[in-house]
Amino acid sequence: MELKVVLIGFGVVGQGLAEILIRKRGQLKKMLDVSFLIVGICDLMRGSLYDSEGLSLSQVLDSVESTGRIDHCTAAIKGLNAVEMIQQSDARVAVEVTPTDIITAEPAMSHFKAALQTGKHLVTTNKGPTALALHELSQLAHENGVEFLYEGTVMAGTPVLNLAQRFLTGCSFTRIRGILNGTTNYLLSRMEKGFSYDEALQEAQKLGYAESNPTNDVEGFDTLAKVIILANALMGASLQVADVDRSGISEFKVQAVQEASRESARWKLIGEITRNSEGLTARVGPEKTPSADPLYSIAGATNAITFSTDLLEDVTIIGPGAGKTETGFALLTDLLEVCRIEAGSMQSRG
Amino acid sequence: MELKVVLIGFGVVGQGLAEILIRKRGQLKKMLDVSFLIVGICDLMRGSLYDSEGLSLSQVLDSVESTGRIDHCTAAIKGLNAVEMIQQSDARVAVEVTPTDIITAEPAMSHFKAALQTGKHLVTTNKGPTALALHELSQLAHENGVEFLYEGTVMAGTPVLNLAQRFLTGCSFTRIRGILNGTTNYLLSRMEKGFSYDEALQEAQKLGYAESNPTNDVEGFDTLAKVIILANALMGASLQVADVDRSGISEFKVQAVQEASRESARWKLIGEITRNSEGLTARVGPEKTPSADPLYSIAGATNAITFSTDLLEDVTIIGPGAGKTETGFALLTDLLEVCRIEAGSMQSRG
Repeated sequence: MELKVVLIGFGVVGQGLAEILIRKRGQLKKMLDVSFLIVGICDLMRGSLYDSEGLSLSQVLDSVESTGRIDHCTAAIKGLNAVEMIQQSDARVAVEVTPTDIITAEPAMSHFKAALQTGKHLVTTNKGPTALALHELSQLAHENGVEFLYEGTVMAGTPVLNLAQRFLTGCSFTRIRGILNGTTNYLLSRMEKGFSYDEALQEAQKLGYAESNPTNDVEGFDTLAKVIILANALMGASLQVADVDRSGISEFKVQAVQEASRESARWKLIGEITRNSEGLTARVGPEKTPSADPLYSIAGATNAITFSTDLLEDVTIIGPGAGKTETGFALLTDLLEVCRIEAGSMQSRG
Repeated sequence: MELKVVLIGFGVVGQGLAEILIRKRGQLKKMLDVSFLIVGICDLMRGSLYDSEGLSLSQVLDSVESTGRIDHCTAAIKGLNAVEMIQQSDARVAVEVTPTDIITAEPAMSHFKAALQTGKHLVTTNKGPTALALHELSQLAHENGVEFLYEGTVMAGTPVLNLAQRFLTGCSFTRIRGILNGTTNYLLSRMEKGFSYDEALQEAQKLGYAESNPTNDVEGFDTLAKVIILANALMGASLQVADVDRSGISEFKVQAVQEASRESARWKLIGEITRNSEGLTARVGPEKTPSADPLYSIAGATNAITFSTDLLEDVTIIGPGAGKTETGFALLTDLLEVCRIEAGSMQSRG
């Protein structure tokens, strides 16, 4: 099977997917008889290329590396904006990886809707629209007979949402609790070593672990978006931003971190959803975690989630929460899921 | 969809599945439109019942609890042996949960073959035949157009094999490493508290964590079977028992355990498969695990596996490795997978 794909956004994650598709092309063809043809790439800063016969991913990656742009590459049509490309292309799937905005969700929301309304499967790592309108988007996908897949919105390519939706079916979740943001976990790990919050932040910014404006991470907004996605996707909730009690770590003092260390505990920025007799409670905030907790040993930029269930007790998954290849892999996982669904529906048409 | 099932073996795990099917009947029907009709139960010690219209699971469970047997219950046909029941029934699936023998694999192997050869899906937690003949059985299933599913052979219902096969597709595994046996991990945890090996073993036997003859667990045979299943199912290997270097913990001294503790390390019985330029190496044995390793904090009867991959670095999953409900849940997961496949093939026939 060959699946035509347009790529909306070509920053780190989009490039990560492109690199994986080149690297794994032979293996995917040989083992699964699957190939992906990227027919369009549109990025606000880097240019726009469309060719129904397919683009050369290696040419595009070389061009980005040498010039920062893609519009010198060979392609039949250049300059389409994202919505035009989604609407006019004959791709079966739109991969949306533009920058996240969790207040307005734009411009991603317009891309999402354009894809679903023109009958294209939507695969994304974009937390903005997914957190703000998961049920509305799922409904729109359903009405148009396509899939809306968003594994990479939580813990990058570490299989979390797919795992819970597919292989914990039948379990009820009483609690979902995790370290969902690598930046803050890195900062807290460094403060344990004696660095002040400001020193740790400067180091993280130098290493590329923290953005120049770190508010989104350190004030807990990134974790909050993931908490909403987990609650709404896995616990049947309809949470909105205002429903989640949120605090961050920017006021955190190195003394508090080191004090915990002496008690064999560690402060972690925890996102948590709990179900009790009165319904769901969701919160984001620093928590002192004892050494018997599987989240205690999660160091640096690694992420982890514990699902507390009725039939399996606690199941914890630990893995990368960010990274070019690691997040690109989430898109591959969802693209392969689209292939399985398409193969099933082709069979049923045949 | 209604799926007819025969249950071969009705010990702890079979009863665990029966309890889950009663408890989750409404939820499975409502959410997935799926129901399971148990038409036969055959257990060497407890009796044999068959009724194509379905058995009453609550009557059967009550009978086992009060008399230890099931043959007083209502059923059209009584006394069929396992192979007769599998061959003569109109069930679509055989669930095989008889006691494991990892030397001869019998009588489970005969049950497995009878099921596959008569075109029934086979769902099992039985490590014997799965470890000894995974490829042969997969081939037999393929030839007969049915599924061979064995999630519960490793880490009970914690989704390990399904996770790796479905949602790490595209990753190559360079290493799989885990704590795969709860009994030995419990013993080592107790020895860390100062108990001798013999004291810890006696306590574990009292609590039902260790069998009266603990050889299978403490000498590493149980872990060895799981290592073979992981290697053969996930790393394209064809390992046999003799290919795995094995040592257990029965000679272990409490001094060694406590010495490690002073170095902030812990001895764990580790099963490990590593791929290098010369091929695969598999081993089972005690290993001193440092506190930075996610396996360090796995205490008591909990199990864990770390997959080292090319695209996602390390992904670790932690969860129960045994238990009545926890292992019964593995069977439910595989039964739901059969339903999805049957639904797909019904669509394609329609």
